[in-house]
Amino acid sequence: MSKPSLPQGTRDFGPETVRKRNYILDTIKNVFELYGFQPLETPAMENLETLMGKYGDEGDKLIFKILNNGLNDPKNLEKAKIGFDNILSGKSDRNFTERALRYDLTIPFARYVAMNHSLLNFPFKRYQVQPVWRADRPQKGRYREFWQCDADVAGSTSLMNEVEFVHIYDAVFTKLGLKGYELRINSRMVLAALAEKCGGTALLTDITVAIDKLDKIGLDKVTEELSGKGLTPEQIIIIEKYLTIEGDNASKIEGARKLVGDIDQGAKGLSALQFILSKTGPGIPLHLDFTLARGLNYYTGTIFEAKAPAEIKMGSIGGGGRYDDLTGLFGVKDVPGTGISFGVDRIYDVMEELNVFPNDINVSTQVMFLNAGDDNDVFRLMQLLRREGIRSELFHENQKIDRQYKYAEKKSIPFVVSMGNGSIQVKDIRTGIVTVMSEQELLNMRFV
Amino acid sequence: MSKPSLPQGTRDFGPETVRKRNYILDTIKNVFELYGFQPLETPAMENLETLMGKYGDEGDKLIFKILNNGLNDPKNLEKAKIGFDNILSGKSDRNFTERALRYDLTIPFARYVAMNHSLLNFPFKRYQVQPVWRADRPQKGRYREFWQCDADVAGSTSLMNEVEFVHIYDAVFTKLGLKGYELRINSRMVLAALAEKCGGTALLTDITVAIDKLDKIGLDKVTEELSGKGLTPEQIIIIEKYLTIEGDNASKIEGARKLVGDIDQGAKGLSALQFILSKTGPGIPLHLDFTLARGLNYYTGTIFEAKAPAEIKMGSIGGGGRYDDLTGLFGVKDVPGTGISFGVDRIYDVMEELNVFPNDINVSTQVMFLNAGDDNDVFRLMQLLRREGIRSELFHENQKIDRQYKYAEKKSIPFVVSMGNGSIQVKDIRTGIVTVMSEQELLNMRFV
Repeated sequence: MSKPSLPQGTRDFGPETVRKRNYILDTIKNVFELYGFQPLETPAMENLETLMGKYGDEGDKLIFKILNNGLNDPKNLEKAKIGFDNILSGKSDRNFTERALRYDLTIPFARYVAMNHSLLNFPFKRYQVQPVWRADRPQKGRYREFWQCDADVAGSTSLMNEVEFVHIYDAVFTKLGLKGYELRINSRMVLAALAEKCGGTALLTDITVAIDKLDKIGLDKVTEELSGKGLTPEQIIIIEKYLTIEGDNASKIEGARKLVGDIDQGAKGLSALQFILSKTGPGIPLHLDFTLARGLNYYTGTIFEAKAPAEIKMGSIGGGGRYDDLTGLFGVKDVPGTGISFGVDRIYDVMEELNVFPNDINVSTQVMFLNAGDDNDVFRLMQLLRREGIRSELFHENQKIDRQYKYAEKKSIPFVVSMGNGSIQVKDIRTGIVTVMSEQELLNMRFV
Repeated sequence: MSKPSLPQGTRDFGPETVRKRNYILDTIKNVFELYGFQPLETPAMENLETLMGKYGDEGDKLIFKILNNGLNDPKNLEKAKIGFDNILSGKSDRNFTERALRYDLTIPFARYVAMNHSLLNFPFKRYQVQPVWRADRPQKGRYREFWQCDADVAGSTSLMNEVEFVHIYDAVFTKLGLKGYELRINSRMVLAALAEKCGGTALLTDITVAIDKLDKIGLDKVTEELSGKGLTPEQIIIIEKYLTIEGDNASKIEGARKLVGDIDQGAKGLSALQFILSKTGPGIPLHLDFTLARGLNYYTGTIFEAKAPAEIKMGSIGGGGRYDDLTGLFGVKDVPGTGISFGVDRIYDVMEELNVFPNDINVSTQVMFLNAGDDNDVFRLMQLLRREGIRSELFHENQKIDRQYKYAEKKSIPFVVSMGNGSIQVKDIRTGIVTVMSEQELLNMRFV
């Protein structure tokens, strides 16, 4: 008998972890609902062609594919062999595998919108909280199964959506107790204008990819990389000027306007950013950050990033942005989108480090009745408590009292009730205080 | 561009469906918590050897296997080919696939208990609500991705667990409004005694499998099948007597005692059933049903089945039972288990047919503000409402009023607010009634 184990990069979530995760997820979902977003769930499996080619070559390699069933049935042998040869030569093949596991929540959302386009009420504001799977090399903080938590609006170009997303981030992080978190904002249009200023939009990807690394490798290495990509010293000076724009939000807008304000895209991007900043109002730590690029290529407008409080070495705990064309890949045109995502696993780690989970989060059962043998009165009383919404249990067997108390302690059950000789004793096992009370008093207790 | 589609047997859940499903799932989870059960979540993927061989030959065929990644990397070619040959010859092969999708929640639970045995607080009462995947031929009411909703106790032989499960079923079905549901109970020990009475425990599987079909094929066909399995007319007469035991619960126990009460297992099983019936008390539709067999072979004690109200042609909406050996398959001995399961998809269909979902379940946004152009006052007021917990949204653009109302109607938003000239008008779009009010009055409204 081999010892059971878990696949690499996957995790069991025991009771305490599930409760803490649900605390985060429920907080986020409630805020999404407060802002008029509606829940959507899509299947874990998608057709292979729905996913392939959507995440770049690297992404394609990380998609988990599902083997067709019945392949070792003799009548499918030939079919399976052809499929296998195809897949080995780099083609994917329906004979062999035609389904794969969800890699993110955006493509399934786009697929859903494309499939249900004529039925939906636009703008369609949906949120989705589900696991995704990636065959990445597992490492600290990187899993093969992890949760995404997205809100997107399909079918609206209004910048009020961006303003709302800023408020959603703030409401969630404030409720979760992440004081000191930071929101950064930029626009892909400004980056596109910068590329144009440097000599052409063809440079946009190179520039974006290089800038995206600024935090990690520093300005010198970024300019080195750009020079390696063939940018001239004159072009690199423009980019350096851009990356070193400083000051408060208003002065930064001014600085950028001097640099790229004469380019149509630049003017539009900057006035969009100005609109979002002015509508957001004070009290929200929203910072214009022209060095924010975000790797994903489908963003075309405003981009966001949420950072953990500076004292925690964690970096991004959320991000998002605007994309002009959500469903074009699936044959439905003119559906713009904008969305944000919360990094649940990282938020969990940050909250652990800051110690901001509520104390009572791990109280499951509130009261345990000692088992002193067959006693219908105990069961009757417990059922009455449960009817009042008090989470209660009876120890399963008439074992030694010590053993029963030990179970209650290990399960963090705060109250233990013993009954006998017509009296009810309630012990608060956190303080050790025992109170004798009547049945009615017990039923009126709140057990907190 | 091919039209996007979903894999056969899978479903998207749009907002209304998610809300209704969550209503069911939250009701069940809350009752599990009231009874001291704690949440567990396990990964969608398990190692292949964790799952294979646990569900019988038919089950093995229905397990979705995941292709190892990087197989079409040239350096993995030889490895992949060997793996492919192995899998074609009926062996599963780690070169080729070493992971598979969860097939049920019981085996992952057993794997979890075995892996964490020394850390757990026994009896370990866990509930688990997650999707499972089976490569079954899709048909009405049968999906390839569906949700299971289980509660199990590991490490207790106390029959009070069974009594609690009866109360859990009753609490859930009552809260969901499923008047007329029925709970049936039997014991595998009684069936084992019947087999012994007929000539030997070797007959238990044949007898159980045949009895399991009684509802569908009738008594004559059952005896025909048993006769085909080689049972003698004398043996079949005993089984017929058993299957036609009638009366209320007490008379049925008497009838069975006469038939198998002299067999040790029979006496034990009957007194267990008697205990559960007597502890359950009146008011719960718990019926002894000696024809209940339940196909799964790992049950060894009490077995349960929950039936939809008789006016709905649906059959089983839940089931469960006791198994002596939960973790033996994973090398950990002496962990008995008992558990129940809710059939969420079927409960959903029954509730739709009975029309018992609460009316307000599909109210997401409670109030929509009309968009009449740039107006900071509207946004400020909306944020105040949201702070009070009122789910609010502002229509995204300054479009025609008709268009804005249409959006609200389609989304079942009950209240629409328009502001202008210093006055606030609130329209209840269900009645058409418009009320003019002050800001303070608006903030005090409950929007139901």
